[in-house]
Amino acid sequence: MTSTNVKRCDGRLENQLRPFSFQRQFTKYAEGSVLVCCGETKVLCNASVEERVPPFMRGQGRGWVTAEYSMLPRATHTRSMREAAKGKISGRTQEIQRLIGRSLRAVTDLEAMGEITVQIDCDVLQADGGTRTASITGAYIALYDALNHLVTKGVLNELPLKDSVSAISVGIVAANPLLDLDYQEDSNADVDMNFVITGTGKFVEVQGTAEEEPFSLEQLDELRNLALQGCRELTSLQRQSLDLES
Amino acid sequence: MTSTNVKRCDGRLENQLRPFSFQRQFTKYAEGSVLVCCGETKVLCNASVEERVPPFMRGQGRGWVTAEYSMLPRATHTRSMREAAKGKISGRTQEIQRLIGRSLRAVTDLEAMGEITVQIDCDVLQADGGTRTASITGAYIALYDALNHLVTKGVLNELPLKDSVSAISVGIVAANPLLDLDYQEDSNADVDMNFVITGTGKFVEVQGTAEEEPFSLEQLDELRNLALQGCRELTSLQRQSLDLES
Amino acid sequence: MTSTNVKRCDGRLENQLRPFSFQRQFTKYAEGSVLVCCGETKVLCNASVEERVPPFMRGQGRGWVTAEYSMLPRATHTRSMREAAKGKISGRTQEIQRLIGRSLRAVTDLEAMGEITVQIDCDVLQADGGTRTASITGAYIALYDALNHLVTKGVLNELPLKDSVSAISVGIVAANPLLDLDYQEDSNADVDMNFVITGTGKFVEVQGTAEEEPFSLEQLDELRNLALQGCRELTSLQRQSLDLES
Amino acid sequence: MTSTNVKRCDGRLENQLRPFSFQRQFTKYAEGSVLVCCGETKVLCNASVEERVPPFMRGQGRGWVTAEYSMLPRATHTRSMREAAKGKISGRTQEIQRLIGRSLRAVTDLEAMGEITVQIDCDVLQADGGTRTASITGAYIALYDALNHLVTKGVLNELPLKDSVSAISVGIVAANPLLDLDYQEDSNADVDMNFVITGTGKFVEVQGTAEEEPFSLEQLDELRNLALQGCRELTSLQRQSLDLES
Amino acid sequence: MTSTNVKRCDGRLENQLRPFSFQRQFTKYAEGSVLVCCGETKVLCNASVEERVPPFMRGQGRGWVTAEYSMLPRATHTRSMREAAKGKISGRTQEIQRLIGRSLRAVTDLEAMGEITVQIDCDVLQADGGTRTASITGAYIALYDALNHLVTKGVLNELPLKDSVSAISVGIVAANPLLDLDYQEDSNADVDMNFVITGTGKFVEVQGTAEEEPFSLEQLDELRNLALQGCRELTSLQRQSLDLES
Amino acid sequence: MTSTNVKRCDGRLENQLRPFSFQRQFTKYAEGSVLVCCGETKVLCNASVEERVPPFMRGQGRGWVTAEYSMLPRATHTRSMREAAKGKISGRTQEIQRLIGRSLRAVTDLEAMGEITVQIDCDVLQADGGTRTASITGAYIALYDALNHLVTKGVLNELPLKDSVSAISVGIVAANPLLDLDYQEDSNADVDMNFVITGTGKFVEVQGTAEEEPFSLEQLDELRNLALQGCRELTSLQRQSLDLES
Repeated sequence: MTSTNVKRCDGRLENQLRPFSFQRQFTKYAEGSVLVCCGETKVLCNASVEERVPPFMRGQGRGWVTAEYSMLPRATHTRSMREAAKGKISGRTQEIQRLIGRSLRAVTDLEAMGEITVQIDCDVLQADGGTRTASITGAYIALYDALNHLVTKGVLNELPLKDSVSAISVGIVAANPLLDLDYQEDSNADVDMNFVITGTGKFVEVQGTAEEEPFSLEQLDELRNLALQGCRELTSLQRQSLDLES
Repeated sequence: MTSTNVKRCDGRLENQLRPFSFQRQFTKYAEGSVLVCCGETKVLCNASVEERVPPFMRGQGRGWVTAEYSMLPRATHTRSMREAAKGKISGRTQEIQRLIGRSLRAVTDLEAMGEITVQIDCDVLQADGGTRTASITGAYIALYDALNHLVTKGVLNELPLKDSVSAISVGIVAANPLLDLDYQEDSNADVDMNFVITGTGKFVEVQGTAEEEPFSLEQLDELRNLALQGCRELTSLQRQSLDLES
Repeated sequence: MTSTNVKRCDGRLENQLRPFSFQRQFTKYAEGSVLVCCGETKVLCNASVEERVPPFMRGQGRGWVTAEYSMLPRATHTRSMREAAKGKISGRTQEIQRLIGRSLRAVTDLEAMGEITVQIDCDVLQADGGTRTASITGAYIALYDALNHLVTKGVLNELPLKDSVSAISVGIVAANPLLDLDYQEDSNADVDMNFVITGTGKFVEVQGTAEEEPFSLEQLDELRNLALQGCRELTSLQRQSLDLES
Repeated sequence: MTSTNVKRCDGRLENQLRPFSFQRQFTKYAEGSVLVCCGETKVLCNASVEERVPPFMRGQGRGWVTAEYSMLPRATHTRSMREAAKGKISGRTQEIQRLIGRSLRAVTDLEAMGEITVQIDCDVLQADGGTRTASITGAYIALYDALNHLVTKGVLNELPLKDSVSAISVGIVAANPLLDLDYQEDSNADVDMNFVITGTGKFVEVQGTAEEEPFSLEQLDELRNLALQGCRELTSLQRQSLDLES
Repeated sequence: MTSTNVKRCDGRLENQLRPFSFQRQFTKYAEGSVLVCCGETKVLCNASVEERVPPFMRGQGRGWVTAEYSMLPRATHTRSMREAAKGKISGRTQEIQRLIGRSLRAVTDLEAMGEITVQIDCDVLQADGGTRTASITGAYIALYDALNHLVTKGVLNELPLKDSVSAISVGIVAANPLLDLDYQEDSNADVDMNFVITGTGKFVEVQGTAEEEPFSLEQLDELRNLALQGCRELTSLQRQSLDLES
Repeated sequence: MTSTNVKRCDGRLENQLRPFSFQRQFTKYAEGSVLVCCGETKVLCNASVEERVPPFMRGQGRGWVTAEYSMLPRATHTRSMREAAKGKISGRTQEIQRLIGRSLRAVTDLEAMGEITVQIDCDVLQADGGTRTASITGAYIALYDALNHLVTKGVLNELPLKDSVSAISVGIVAANPLLDLDYQEDSNADVDMNFVITGTGKFVEVQGTAEEEPFSLEQLDELRNLALQGCRELTSLQRQSLDLES
């Protein structure tokens, strides 16, 4: 794979992330509150602590991490109807919020949390592709802050985190494997994959869909490699944001 | 009314507004996008233009302005459930969105708009009292920007606005009439009123509720005067934000 | 304000109520059951006693008064769809039932009730304007009867009522401030206000909306005075109906 | 069957109807509006004319008669929750409204109506057993009045009715076949049947349920005979109410 | 009634059932699982045992039998929409599932069951008329097997069944009373009746509807006789399937 | 990977499929109707042809393939509630039906179909793991039959299929990569992946989730290889079922 001759609208290389930033403590009530910006994609990730677990888990001594996801109606080019107004949550929204929850639970030591729930809310203020992966990457920091808040308060002795987690999209556009697709690229992609990968380089989720054209073994491998590289960089950015020695 | 001996938590005088700010173009897709901050209350007001009207209005040649309102789940001290997850919109939300829509329509020349809808979305990012009045005050600016966008595009010849509009809460707390209640004050108020008033000092909406104790004619008049003064100041801040000669 | 030269369809003076009547014990099961007629507007107000309170209030020793409101499908000129068939309650209905509940609670001594709920059902059999204000005025009598039933049964020692309450609409039609608008007048009103006022002349709710034209301070005051007069008369009619010495 | 030794609470004979009355023009907007009272059971039957048919019937030149049924929350001893508040219509309600609609269509000449819908609303103000049969019996008169209104207006040349229709409940209580059960009797019935029978003595609907004990061929025949007699009497009362020569 | 000169599409006599079969243990998890075939109508009847009763019945020591009914979307000539996708259960479905439940409870000794629920699921794989009656006839066998399973496990001492139950449709097609209508016949029937009858020949449910033409006393009696004969035959087939001495 | 020392409950090798069978024409109305059995998992896949497309696609000259998925309540060990009764479709169901639809569209030439919809219904009669992959594998045959029906009728000139498609689950259980997990294995899997692969060995969907433990690059590759082998075998079985030369 050579990146010399592909032109991306914003001038990025094939294997280049958009600018990422994390604004912690974006709102004042949530125990963790992060505005994650990935290019023009902006997601507010709030983590709320509740000192109880859902009914089906009571009495087991384990914690829970769950997520909800929503787009503001005008996060996109054209206004979309609120799901509250429709009275039901779309299949797409449910897929995404289940994905975010699973991804965060994969790196959390639920046993060590005790009967505490961290509820993550990912609300997309502005969307330009990659909202679900940006949500996971930002939500990890909000989760970290919320759990740290419990350590500071003395509710937990140490952070119940086994690893960190980030996520990125990759895809094949006009036969080129690209990292971190924006909305325009995503709309034209033949293949669209999302990878959720831990800080130590293990896979939590792999989701790939051939929108137009089924893809080969070689293409699968190339996309996987791009994603591994992208998540390594995101891991490093997460650590900087959390002031952890890298 | 003398303001010498009342102590408000944040040191304000009885008849003093919280700091207000308007950030225009807060998101990039909406034709009008304003983040209004009123103290710690932060509401994102997006105005979306659709070049058609709802079915029940077609063929009449008139425009429409309507509004939706929502709180992010963790806009408040305790997380509240999403209305999309509940599958229905609460009575409170419906009251507020109907109020915002009526208030904006009262100053818009719907005849002059032609068959165009401006859809306002007020999403509360952080709530500290006064979210419905801040929504109206901010939404007016978003509406202005969206209509101005139509003038710039040549769709409209001139701004179809008959007046400006702003809103403020007033109330009686511990026997003192106060302007612009924050959450703490609102929770302790015996009487809570919201006024929607035009830039020329006329009333669009008057809503007063005795939470605990019915109120007298004298108290009604005192609250009305506070509100008139508050909206005069808000009108001035709106004009500054829109770079209009005041 | 001179009432000499305004013509109302039914020949009333500007400040004249429509004929009001209260039929108590209209149905036989409800602890309080009142058919209130206000001109051609007819509302059945049933008050049901439950000797428990909603879950969120248990264990506080306080009572609760709440209300539901509905129109029969053919209460109006044109048949409207049932809310049960639509599967949801409209914003207008929710606003009205919240208003009725708040108005009654404002004159009830909830502490003195103990953990008892009075559930008010206002069902409009025929609508000709003013259904929400007639509901409040009639519901007060149903509430009185239901509470009196508890006194008679020995569940309560005395009536837990701090005051009486009634409600009336006022509005500006063709520049004239009018008392107690019927449907035709209401449809043509520039300003529409509802006042809920206690028997001792204090304000419980003030709700004014400029349907077409924002209104001035002078108009607000004139409407307020009409409403105060109207509610004084309604208070007197309520007392007659309840056989109380006036 | 001898009626000498059965004691009914209200002193009726086994084969005796409760007092029936029909108040026509009970409300003023509906084209047909009848308050039917059957003992303490009181149902308001409104018939509304719409000069169109549901989408699935358009262009066929035929008319339609349909019905909705509802109980006011406090029509019964204990208040029941509104179906609008629950957000769905119970199976019982749906069964009843389908039954009413079928019964009325069975005597209506839909071809002769043209593309007109008569929508029947049966709202139970007070329930003491037999609400569905009283609804049918009263709705027939409301339907008659609504169709007659169309004849008077010149929309129809003659009444598109092939027969009249009425309905009655019968049942076996303590081994006695009884006509027209009230709530108390219905609660104790081993068998409960509803018959819908035309003015000329033909069957439109037969619905029998063994609540406790399956019933024999002889019992079936006895109940059928009671119902035939009851509906003959109801037919006569309907004709009197409509001022038709019997 | 002479059956010599009526031609039925499939060559049956007027009083002849379609071929019936019962496949027990059709699926492996349900305590009772029966595929009932009645000509081309195929219904899977699963009976599930839950060792508790619904909340409203707890503590009474009685059991419960209830049923749900559904058609696969393509059980019919034209695909119909899933009720899950519509978000609500139709009136027809609710009527049918209430009928199935009542029919089975009528022959079950609920007192003898203890606090156990048998939940019947009737899922129509293919529909050619008579799905509700086939459901009842098949569900009885599934119920028998599920209760027998409880006897075998030692939870019950003996089968809590007071009688057996089966059901059949009859109708009048082109003036001929016919037994066991298929879809084609049912679509052309002037009268359609369903009978639910016990093994000992007693009536549990009688439901007759004049789709087009009200029917006479003589016709009612003829249909009743056909149904009694049909259910006698079904009872015999049920006993064979259950290997009971007839 | 050596398969010598892993014990699977049913004696299969690590890389061995369960017995698969396809019963075509399982029901008589659907244009394609296949009962697919994969061990104890049994899914009825019906394909229905509608000669129109959904509103959002009209006038484009392209076809559509879409899918719905449901489990019968007692397809599983414990009865689960119907989604129709709950009034909404779960996130899991929506994910699965979107997956089935995308998988089939990936091998269909929608342009060549013209404005025709094939609606696939996958109803699980019995579930023992792998219901979504069995659904896809069986639905392909139902789709083939439905499209072939259109060729036979002369509506289409040739089969608008670009490739075939099948799907299989793989996972890591107790550190062993296994092909085609049954329910028991799936419940204990640390990693669970579903692959949708065309007859020519290209990927349509890749979905992997670490339920317990994130997985390494090597494990990802091993699972991918198992899936490729499994789908090659399924392709061959599909061709046999369709009587195509392999």
